[in-house]
Amino acid sequence: MTTGATPRRRGRPARKDAESGPSARQKILETARAEFAARGYDKTSVRGIAKAAGVDPALVHHYFGTKDEVFASAVEISFEPALTVPAKVVAGDPGTIGERLARQFFAVWENPATRTPLLAVIRSALTHDAAAAVLRTFVLRRLLGQVAERLDVPDPEFRAELCASHMVGIALLRYVIKAEPLASVDMEQIITMVAPTLQRYLTEA
Amino acid sequence: MTTGATPRRRGRPARKDAESGPSARQKILETARAEFAARGYDKTSVRGIAKAAGVDPALVHHYFGTKDEVFASAVEISFEPALTVPAKVVAGDPGTIGERLARQFFAVWENPATRTPLLAVIRSALTHDAAAAVLRTFVLRRLLGQVAERLDVPDPEFRAELCASHMVGIALLRYVIKAEPLASVDMEQIITMVAPTLQRYLTEA
Repeated sequence: MTTGATPRRRGRPARKDAESGPSARQKILETARAEFAARGYDKTSVRGIAKAAGVDPALVHHYFGTKDEVFASAVEISFEPALTVPAKVVAGDPGTIGERLARQFFAVWENPATRTPLLAVIRSALTHDAAAAVLRTFVLRRLLGQVAERLDVPDPEFRAELCASHMVGIALLRYVIKAEPLASVDMEQIITMVAPTLQRYLTEA
Repeated sequence: MTTGATPRRRGRPARKDAESGPSARQKILETARAEFAARGYDKTSVRGIAKAAGVDPALVHHYFGTKDEVFASAVEISFEPALTVPAKVVAGDPGTIGERLARQFFAVWENPATRTPLLAVIRSALTHDAAAAVLRTFVLRRLLGQVAERLDVPDPEFRAELCASHMVGIALLRYVIKAEPLASVDMEQIITMVAPTLQRYLTEA
């Protein structure tokens, strides 16, 4: 590889240095995530993302494509903290997999920094079909798939989805609807109750 | 009670017959429910509800008050099919309460006529704080409270909320996100897996 000037790909518009390269791509992606989180799927536009990132809308399209594709990329980085969960869950004693899953999942949700972008994605998916399609594909392929392929039970994908449904439901009641006492109860109390449920779904035929 | 002309309350604007009485109130309420369901909380206005119902906006305010109060009333009728659930669940053999709860809950959700307004309420609650407050108050006081007060376990409200979180999570993954295989699996398969979980939450200390 030669050092010096970065080779410019054909078809890409000539731009000033601040708008090119991995740092511009990363900045657009972080801005897109923040915009989708703050405004929701409906009110976020490629033009608005470009303006907030200080770049031309054509550059957003160049790197990511359509609004749905920008959203899909933003979803992926929103779920990055969650992507390490399956490996931590499937490794270790199968007899405590339910508790590990609950702890890993809620650790991501109890931290506002990782909760906010996840919530934004889930809210978008519950109100827009395009966003639902992204979550459906992403969750199935990347998160649940990794857990399901390591399970030794009938219908492992179904079992993994039952676990996900319970934890997502708790997250929505606790952090969004803020239904008491679930919103204020100690997380350990939730884990104590829920871990045996997840354990049964993941290990009992 | 005298027959003939309906007495008109003080302060209520004089209107033609089609705009007064219980039928006008009912029509506004049904229209409000349909508008909130079709457009979501954000895009629904008192003015729009009035227009769709063919009445003056002042009449909507007269019967229901603010937009949030119209929404609260629309939520109540959306949940009417669900209001019979607690009585059916708490009556009968405590050893099968988990299965009864699952069957009653999903019977409401499997029917598109009763699912659609419920989904609209939940979507609104997940995206708007005012709508979340309505659901939080309503769900706690009317639905979960009726179940919790009949339970003989520690923290009955918490237990009832854990059940609700699981079933709502399944409903969202099955009917909104449409995550496979959960979206297509036979309802009996879901009930078989979930009933023992609900049974444990509701009866085991």
